[in-house]
Amino acid sequence: MKEAPKRAHEPWKAFQARQRNQDIKRDAVLQTAAHMFLEQGYRRTSMSELARRLQITKPALYYYFHNKEQILVECYRAGITLIETLLDKALVSRGTGLTKVKAYIEAYAKSVVLYDFGRCVAMLDENELSPETRREVRALKRRIDASIRGYIEEGIADKSIAPCDAKLASFAMSGAINWIGTWYKPSGPLSGVEIAGHFTHLLTEGLHARTSTTSRHRVIARATPRKTSATKAGKASR
Amino acid sequence: MKEAPKRAHEPWKAFQARQRNQDIKRDAVLQTAAHMFLEQGYRRTSMSELARRLQITKPALYYYFHNKEQILVECYRAGITLIETLLDKALVSRGTGLTKVKAYIEAYAKSVVLYDFGRCVAMLDENELSPETRREVRALKRRIDASIRGYIEEGIADKSIAPCDAKLASFAMSGAINWIGTWYKPSGPLSGVEIAGHFTHLLTEGLHARTSTTSRHRVIARATPRKTSATKAGKASR
Repeated sequence: MKEAPKRAHEPWKAFQARQRNQDIKRDAVLQTAAHMFLEQGYRRTSMSELARRLQITKPALYYYFHNKEQILVECYRAGITLIETLLDKALVSRGTGLTKVKAYIEAYAKSVVLYDFGRCVAMLDENELSPETRREVRALKRRIDASIRGYIEEGIADKSIAPCDAKLASFAMSGAINWIGTWYKPSGPLSGVEIAGHFTHLLTEGLHARTSTTSRHRVIARATPRKTSATKAGKASR
Repeated sequence: MKEAPKRAHEPWKAFQARQRNQDIKRDAVLQTAAHMFLEQGYRRTSMSELARRLQITKPALYYYFHNKEQILVECYRAGITLIETLLDKALVSRGTGLTKVKAYIEAYAKSVVLYDFGRCVAMLDENELSPETRREVRALKRRIDASIRGYIEEGIADKSIAPCDAKLASFAMSGAINWIGTWYKPSGPLSGVEIAGHFTHLLTEGLHARTSTTSRHRVIARATPRKTSATKAGKASR
């Protein structure tokens, strides 16, 4: 009698365990595919090669995904969900438009530097998608673009950001961040978090040295002694 | 006797005219190919389609170029020569490192916005090249990267630029500019020259509103009345 309730749950538990196992395998396929797409290009990655890398058979791979394009779409979806989650987390705190833009740039840069799925959104060619899924991916990306534009407009309104063309500014920010994917090497001397921090500062404060030395300059100069050497920084990439 | 010198030159002139004609045709092939590569992707552009667009036969096309990769390499070479010429022109004037960086960003942005060859350098995938030509193209691009890094370092030394990681800053600048190729539409409300001007300002001055309103803010506000409307700016692309 004592064992009965436990036994009654077992078939459901087994089903749940199997389901969980399948989800884990499906995720593994996506992770490996994202890595290969970034490493050698989407076109150059074949389903056979992906199966080989995963050490599974091709039919096993096709059990999870109908074709390569479906995998690509899922990589985009995973990346966009990741970016939106990081952006939402970063923007819990209230503040001026500029504060929000800074949090946004930092979160977005981290998603590109630290995660393959984030890098997929920045780097892979949407033209590989069918017109239908391309429309979906573009709509998701536009949502991200619209957020940063909104924060820039908020900053212009609350006077924390100098008057500018919010759309062009958002493109400049996204471009600089997306481009990280082309040069970033995890083996470089700067960590992803450090790169995200530098980019946030550069894009919001600009290069211009101000005549009044504010505390922000002192902070940056103190935080980055080893990066002032051109030789060392030169190892960052390529 | 009077006609003799003229006649003596004629075969050479005819040769020169033919040569000139061939150069013009070769250029037309390159221009059209660059446009098609950007429009529909390198992979999706076939030699047959290129010949069709040029209204020449395939053998005529193969007279000028052995294969598609040779055309791609030449597009890169033409783009890099164009960018270097624009950069050299922009940097005739002397000034601080910051002045040079501004001139550089403006010239580079113009090359990407106004010229297909410039956009090829920014947008096309080097992975399509053979290892040998890829090395050549990368070396040429590194020369451009090294220039901007040099000007940033010059600006840090002459105190016109706030201390920063020159390599990361150069990547942020190039990324923002290269990315223009993904969103820019010639039919948008802003001209290429206006976009280049905005980018130069944004990347060197940052978004941050300064408490002391300097003349630069007044200039920008006056120069861009129509861009403060989000609706209008919204038409810039996509």
